[in-house]
Amino acid sequence: MGENILRKEKISDAVIRRLPRYYRQLTDLCVRGIVRVSSRTLGDEMGITASQIRQDFSCFGEFGQQGYGYHVEELRTEIGRILGVDQNHRMIIIGAGHLGHALLRNFPFSQNGFSVDAAFDVSPAVIGSYINGKPVYAMSGVEEYLSENIVDVVALTIPQSVAQETADRLIAVGVRAFWNFTNVELVSTNPNVIFENIHFADSLLTLGYRIAHR
Amino acid sequence: MGENILRKEKISDAVIRRLPRYYRQLTDLCVRGIVRVSSRTLGDEMGITASQIRQDFSCFGEFGQQGYGYHVEELRTEIGRILGVDQNHRMIIIGAGHLGHALLRNFPFSQNGFSVDAAFDVSPAVIGSYINGKPVYAMSGVEEYLSENIVDVVALTIPQSVAQETADRLIAVGVRAFWNFTNVELVSTNPNVIFENIHFADSLLTLGYRIAHR
Repeated sequence: MGENILRKEKISDAVIRRLPRYYRQLTDLCVRGIVRVSSRTLGDEMGITASQIRQDFSCFGEFGQQGYGYHVEELRTEIGRILGVDQNHRMIIIGAGHLGHALLRNFPFSQNGFSVDAAFDVSPAVIGSYINGKPVYAMSGVEEYLSENIVDVVALTIPQSVAQETADRLIAVGVRAFWNFTNVELVSTNPNVIFENIHFADSLLTLGYRIAHR
Repeated sequence: MGENILRKEKISDAVIRRLPRYYRQLTDLCVRGIVRVSSRTLGDEMGITASQIRQDFSCFGEFGQQGYGYHVEELRTEIGRILGVDQNHRMIIIGAGHLGHALLRNFPFSQNGFSVDAAFDVSPAVIGSYINGKPVYAMSGVEEYLSENIVDVVALTIPQSVAQETADRLIAVGVRAFWNFTNVELVSTNPNVIFENIHFADSLLTLGYRIAHR
């Protein structure tokens, strides 16, 4: 519903959010050495209907031949291209605490089309240090850094109490995309600012509901 | 679409996933001292249509009077009850690395109806230590712990390479719910096992798409 209208204008958020799941599933199929997959089989493995998959893919053109299914590697490459895994979006991380450390040390940014150039923090304990080869600078210098370096997105791994003010401060000097781990619903009067939120609490509350109602 | 059918059988996942967002928004309204809110105003603040909100809430009974809007605090309390924020689901965290530390130190579990009793790790560097008052035990003892303690959910903050085998090991001794941070699509032949995934990569890929296509 609404899908056809959305398709003509812009891809719906629901479709966009399924793309990474398709990409993950197709990567798994590649690893398993599977060459071709039908929308039915792909759907069964993902808990999505075959028609939903065909409708999603039709937003981006035709990937498969009716009756022949999809070529796994080609489809994975195409969806990866759509998602921009071949890009190199430049990121900085604000907050070099445990979560910042976890991202810097363990997250495969390059596999997802991103690279982290630096982290910023207010704590003298970490300022001047390197985490997995990335420098940790003083937060007081972030405006200067942004004026001299290309930064496509800022990851926020800071306390809730300073989340909005920090976002406002960064938006004021040109930041237009945030990967938000603060669990605060950040807002901006600038419609061009993108907030991608990872809400741990929303996920946990959903889990609590499912545990209680299974 | 399908909503009406789903409503008769079970609440759709989409509705369940919106509940935490409503809860967050209503908490914010409470903090701002707002007593009553219309579905339109609530929807405007959340980017959801008023009819969608009324339809979602109707899954759980009638919360508002036509024309009078919703009593913010009452609605927040009711949705909180539905989500189980008054519960005390018992959790253990497998993996006391940076992400495990971040959760143990900074995440408000009790606000979300959960409490963490212990963490487990394979590293001698952390085994026997306490993180924010919670003991870190050796992973080798997890089966014994599970046989002697109530554990409603296990959070997995371990490397991808050991994610599925660890889940299988825990499912074998009765674990039926996982809060999964491994970015691996965990599977189980047991239909009663719940996996709630926080896929950092899916979120980042979505952000990359939105940056490239804005």
